[in-house]
Amino acid sequence: MAPSSRALRQLAAPSSGAALLQQSPAVPRLFLQTSCRTAGARPVFGSAQGPVARQFRRGYSSETPAPAPPPRMSRFRRRLRWTWRLGYLSAIAGIAYIGYGVYKDRHPEPQVDPDPSKKTLVILGTGWGSISLLKRLDTENYNVIVISPRNYFLFTPLLPSCTNGTIEHRSIMEPVRTILRQKKGRVKFYEAEASSIDPERKVVRIFDNSEIRGDITETEVPYDMLVIGVGAENATFGIPGVREHSCFLKEIGDAQKIRKRIMDCVETAAFKDQSPEEIDRLLHMVVVGGGPTGVEFAGELQDFFEEDIKKLVPEISDRFRVTLIEALPSVLPMFSKQLIEYTESTFKEEKINIHTKTMVKKVTDKTVEAEVTRPDGTKETVVFPYGLLVWATGNAVRPVVKDLMARIPAQKNSRRGLAVNEYLVVQGTRDIWAVGDCAVAGYAPTAQVASQEGNFLARLFNNMAKTEALESKIRELSSSLNLQPGNSAAISREIEEHERQLRRIKDIKPFYYSHQGSLAYIGSEKAVADVTWFNGNVAAAGSLTFLFWRSAYISMCFSMRNRLLVINDWLKSKVFGRDLSRE
Amino acid sequence: MAPSSRALRQLAAPSSGAALLQQSPAVPRLFLQTSCRTAGARPVFGSAQGPVARQFRRGYSSETPAPAPPPRMSRFRRRLRWTWRLGYLSAIAGIAYIGYGVYKDRHPEPQVDPDPSKKTLVILGTGWGSISLLKRLDTENYNVIVISPRNYFLFTPLLPSCTNGTIEHRSIMEPVRTILRQKKGRVKFYEAEASSIDPERKVVRIFDNSEIRGDITETEVPYDMLVIGVGAENATFGIPGVREHSCFLKEIGDAQKIRKRIMDCVETAAFKDQSPEEIDRLLHMVVVGGGPTGVEFAGELQDFFEEDIKKLVPEISDRFRVTLIEALPSVLPMFSKQLIEYTESTFKEEKINIHTKTMVKKVTDKTVEAEVTRPDGTKETVVFPYGLLVWATGNAVRPVVKDLMARIPAQKNSRRGLAVNEYLVVQGTRDIWAVGDCAVAGYAPTAQVASQEGNFLARLFNNMAKTEALESKIRELSSSLNLQPGNSAAISREIEEHERQLRRIKDIKPFYYSHQGSLAYIGSEKAVADVTWFNGNVAAAGSLTFLFWRSAYISMCFSMRNRLLVINDWLKSKVFGRDLSRE
Repeated sequence: MAPSSRALRQLAAPSSGAALLQQSPAVPRLFLQTSCRTAGARPVFGSAQGPVARQFRRGYSSETPAPAPPPRMSRFRRRLRWTWRLGYLSAIAGIAYIGYGVYKDRHPEPQVDPDPSKKTLVILGTGWGSISLLKRLDTENYNVIVISPRNYFLFTPLLPSCTNGTIEHRSIMEPVRTILRQKKGRVKFYEAEASSIDPERKVVRIFDNSEIRGDITETEVPYDMLVIGVGAENATFGIPGVREHSCFLKEIGDAQKIRKRIMDCVETAAFKDQSPEEIDRLLHMVVVGGGPTGVEFAGELQDFFEEDIKKLVPEISDRFRVTLIEALPSVLPMFSKQLIEYTESTFKEEKINIHTKTMVKKVTDKTVEAEVTRPDGTKETVVFPYGLLVWATGNAVRPVVKDLMARIPAQKNSRRGLAVNEYLVVQGTRDIWAVGDCAVAGYAPTAQVASQEGNFLARLFNNMAKTEALESKIRELSSSLNLQPGNSAAISREIEEHERQLRRIKDIKPFYYSHQGSLAYIGSEKAVADVTWFNGNVAAAGSLTFLFWRSAYISMCFSMRNRLLVINDWLKSKVFGRDLSRE
Repeated sequence: MAPSSRALRQLAAPSSGAALLQQSPAVPRLFLQTSCRTAGARPVFGSAQGPVARQFRRGYSSETPAPAPPPRMSRFRRRLRWTWRLGYLSAIAGIAYIGYGVYKDRHPEPQVDPDPSKKTLVILGTGWGSISLLKRLDTENYNVIVISPRNYFLFTPLLPSCTNGTIEHRSIMEPVRTILRQKKGRVKFYEAEASSIDPERKVVRIFDNSEIRGDITETEVPYDMLVIGVGAENATFGIPGVREHSCFLKEIGDAQKIRKRIMDCVETAAFKDQSPEEIDRLLHMVVVGGGPTGVEFAGELQDFFEEDIKKLVPEISDRFRVTLIEALPSVLPMFSKQLIEYTESTFKEEKINIHTKTMVKKVTDKTVEAEVTRPDGTKETVVFPYGLLVWATGNAVRPVVKDLMARIPAQKNSRRGLAVNEYLVVQGTRDIWAVGDCAVAGYAPTAQVASQEGNFLARLFNNMAKTEALESKIRELSSSLNLQPGNSAAISREIEEHERQLRRIKDIKPFYYSHQGSLAYIGSEKAVADVTWFNGNVAAAGSLTFLFWRSAYISMCFSMRNRLLVINDWLKSKVFGRDLSRE
């Protein structure tokens, strides 16, 4: 850190330079000015200017009298000097902060082993809900076991950017092992899928669904407390052909598959003697679902084509088309009206066709059949030939959750997932909580909701641990009260004190979701944002919003590692363009 | 580029600064250096001083005369200044060079369309041979068509580093489209596999073997000249179970599969209630093949475990084992004896078991059966239970090449590939050349040989184009000779001149392979190198050689993009560690 130390020295004794300077005569200082200025080192030389200037006049006056330098100038210089110093320092501070963050992640403290006497807390899933819970949870208060078929946390908001290589997928993945290593109390992790939950016996049945399996591929994990954060799976609404022919956009594998297929379509379209109609079909990318995922994907797709594919595969340019299909009357329903209009007009500029009020009825290997409702209310069937079909809509309940719901009478009326109370306790059960897309708490199935639910549970569990500690303390105190009646007053006072603490801790407010706002990228470096601001709403759109979108997502990234990798990828794709290789 | 321009000014009049310094007296100069040094502006302060300093002498002499600076000191200082300036300049030059390289790749010149009257040159494959040929070929002399199932060039030497995430696979892939875009004459590319070659009708039959297909999935491409650079496929030597149960290490997909499986083994070993024997099996990684690929992979694997997995999955540490199986008496047969010994001793330190003289006989889903030849010549069968098996040995002839060999009588005795003559012409054919692993020219099947063969063909074809141009010129001249007997002398002189040129061009030396040396990474930041140096050999090993290995591979990378990305990845894995996520 040469520069930093230098700068510090500089700040430490700014006068020292002055001292020196005073001995130095006029002209050399002048010369020194020019020289240093050319070096862009204004601040340093300035740092000793006041006294010198005076000296300079004296020294020089023996010959021709020099005009005094205009004071305004020098004040300006001093200001400039300070801004420079501040910039300098803040840069150093920033680097130090980042360096420390990275170092801390790489060199965590030794962990304490779980205490068998403590309760066993089993957490299913490694999505937004579960990981937010883990991040805030004091793991030394429980025997925590995390179970998930995915041994990493995925930063889903940037998944659409992975489909075209704007971001490499590993930059938005954070290994669970790394996350758990940061905790004070050691946490067990099993890479497995939960097949069933038995609330009576309080056990979770898990199995290893990966390619490589050991002797033991299925076993049971008993729990005292269970958190279900397994999320949801893709819904096809029973539309024939969707599962067979379309790509989803939920997991990292989906993004890779899409990336592969985009280039496959392009290369197949560029195949020898391909007919024009067939080229048109192959280069027609259809996105179903006008939510943020669908919209962002459509935008990224158009970017990929405009900025990269077009240049390198000129023979097929101006035949590439993106179509967005939405059943509702508009895209981005959660956004305010003017933002929806802005999005639609931007898409028009980008030549992305939007078909709203259009219900997909049937999907074949080369066509999508949809029913369009015309403004006059009449319905008609249209057929879209496609090369790539991406299904970015709908959540369905996972089998393990369905199975659990079937076991609980209180859940028989719930359809979209596990009905939970205001403390996220699964209705009709004890010691089972649910977070995220698999829980029905009356909120939208978004990452924002899931993470707030996770944080809430972390607070709840930390409190419960404290409570239990206090209660046991009180119990033993009251028992000692009977044994030694001597200092009963003191003891009872102590008990009261503990009980007061207990009351304070115990009254936990129920979960309340506070909406921070919605963001969406809409292509060609534009974004729309609907942000809550002092219980008001701020709607913004355009290129500046795009920068806001980027910085917001960066700040939301899980770890410093993720942040730096994502920034690194943005630079990469800017400098080198996106990669056209089809793995 | 403010700094560069500054530096240039500096160079323009480097003497001025030096001259000045001597004239200016000690103290102020001393200060002025300190001050400028703190500003990190040393190099510049020499510039733009002339007038000032002269003035200064006058001004100063009227006051106290300054003591002359001690010459030794100042000489030292001057030297210091110059080293600094050189460093400064070279840094700027380097950045400028890189920036220019990247810019040029991103902004190629417009291309000329192929001229139908020219010959059609079809190149099969996008490996070392074909791409080296393309890189040097003047594509405007032919109608060039490149056909390959892989639309990128893969920098195979770094493939082992992709198996554990030291390098991300996309960093060593260069899209063919980008490569072709750099050429002066436009080149067609079809992402397709060649199914058969008909030397009689001079056509190549190709088909689209990718997931997404158009109406036309199969067609014929006629050629005037054909270069076969399709490489080889993995040989299993008919050993049962190899193809079903082992991973190869040839394509990018193989590296990804291995990366996935390593973590799968680890997670399965960490599964609840896994038995100790099973954990040992799952964490036993067996590598078959003691060539550079196998050795480098074994080293990378051990690194991955020691540096990353161990820290984050402590429960399974000290159970991970790597075993390298080689049929020959030693690993790295192409290296000199002391390097082989060094490798073996290093592997011993790294706890990688080497089993030489061991022939794999049978592979099941969990075990490798091999026959070991003991020092006393007795043979015995040993069984290795394994979690991951990597098959890094053996090349087999691809179907399309087999098919062609069957059509050519002259090839009936050739086994390992297409027998070629000293000009790489496929024996028994006209206008068909072969390069790389599918050609048998008497050299090892290495990237080095393939790329030299490619370069040779490029020179050959460029010459042929020139020759034809000259010959046609001569023809028309001689014909004009009969028409206008007037200035026959001049014409015949011209003809002679052309014929002289023709002779010069025509005598092309046959292909000769010059071995540059062999390099291999052997784990824990050590490498071995056998480099040809002034028709002698230099053998080096250790950590310095590792740096040499890295710089050599960087310099060999195809594009500036690849170089920067690989360096970037090395930094990434150094700073953040390797990623434990299992996609």
